Amino acid sequence: MGEELILLDFWSSPFTTRVRIALREKGVEFKSVEEDLLGTKSQLLLEMNPVHKQVPVLIHNGKPVCESTIILQYIDEVWRDKATPLMPSDPYERANARFWADYIDRKIYSTAKLVWTSTGEVQETAKKNIIECFKLLESELGEKPFFGGNSFGLVDVSLIPFSSRFYTLETCGNFSMSDECPKLVSWAKRCMERESVSKSLPDPYKVYDFVMGLKKQHLQSQQKS
Amino acid sequence: MGEELILLDFWSSPFTTRVRIALREKGVEFKSVEEDLLGTKSQLLLEMNPVHKQVPVLIHNGKPVCESTIILQYIDEVWRDKATPLMPSDPYERANARFWADYIDRKIYSTAKLVWTSTGEVQETAKKNIIECFKLLESELGEKPFFGGNSFGLVDVSLIPFSSRFYTLETCGNFSMSDECPKLVSWAKRCMERESVSKSLPDPYKVYDFVMGLKKQHLQSQQKS
Repeated sequence: MGEELILLDFWSSPFTTRVRIALREKGVEFKSVEEDLLGTKSQLLLEMNPVHKQVPVLIHNGKPVCESTIILQYIDEVWRDKATPLMPSDPYERANARFWADYIDRKIYSTAKLVWTSTGEVQETAKKNIIECFKLLESELGEKPFFGGNSFGLVDVSLIPFSSRFYTLETCGNFSMSDECPKLVSWAKRCMERESVSKSLPDPYKVYDFVMGLKKQHLQSQQKS
Repeated sequence: MGEELILLDFWSSPFTTRVRIALREKGVEFKSVEEDLLGTKSQLLLEMNPVHKQVPVLIHNGKPVCESTIILQYIDEVWRDKATPLMPSDPYERANARFWADYIDRKIYSTAKLVWTSTGEVQETAKKNIIECFKLLESELGEKPFFGGNSFGLVDVSLIPFSSRFYTLETCGNFSMSDECPKLVSWAKRCMERESVSKSLPDPYKVYDFVMGLKKQHLQSQQKS
């Protein structure tokens, strides 16, 4: 087919990581183009995602698809004959998968970020909130091996990139994910057995160093203002 | 099939209005159960949407589907043989429809709300922002009759309920939608020619009275705190 697939990427972003996992699940070759998110955004990014100006953008034969959860569904629809589908076939189960993917989109990143950008009471509340979010997700997982049941699906792909931030969360928030959410930690290990995941997830210690750098910048900009 | 369809509804909500429109587009009978959103939430709502505790919830044969954009896709997938599909069949066009539906979800309600809950400079900025959002949507519409092209689709259903709030926006923000976004106003009129829309949209003057009541409450609670 002579397909050209370019991913506007950023190594530590949970959102671009989702796309790398999905493409690898489908066994599709792609070229990752690293964006300098801390510096100047590339002309290509501004052209391909003029509305949000954010990664990830998947450029498929010159045409951009934006927003990670939308990209995941796009990948599943385009390469639907390949490997395991990410979306269930039953409409009710599809709605349920979309519901939890949306929940993760709305809650996890913003709540987790507060754990490492804040201190004192705000941090304590953020820590309580993120643990509550993870416990809710854990109860949705239940005894299933994956959120998608026996197969790895949309919700798994959406959530697993955040496991690279467990170490940062635990260190900044002074708690243990294994104590709080043991089933979620087991699930994350199970996901890591897949090559699509282990090849795509960044190193948790590198993520920690990166986040600490961001935190320093954040504090400096707060002091200036 | 003996299907039972219950919509946990609220007359002025743009989000529940979307679901009413979609069900009427498909010609599906449903029972609307009005929630008392200003008073106590019903036990049924808390049971059916324990995570967000918000309308709309579509209860289909006892099973709840939550979040309006997810409900729209569910309706389109379940009644896919009926009438016009809400989603395009091409994966790229589907991703594009999801992108704009997501844009509307994230931007319109919160920005519009600021126009009527704020004053002074904050209100001026909110007004500038909401006009910018509408102009961007207008440029996406282009010369097409509907966002879905020749057929009324997901983005049309997502956006049209907000046209019931144009009058409130214009009155509070002191601007004219016809002057700022004439093509969007024509599009809204075109949508209103559909029975699914005209039967589902609330009266703009009633919405104005309702919003003014909310604004009064909002100001009183601000003064108290």
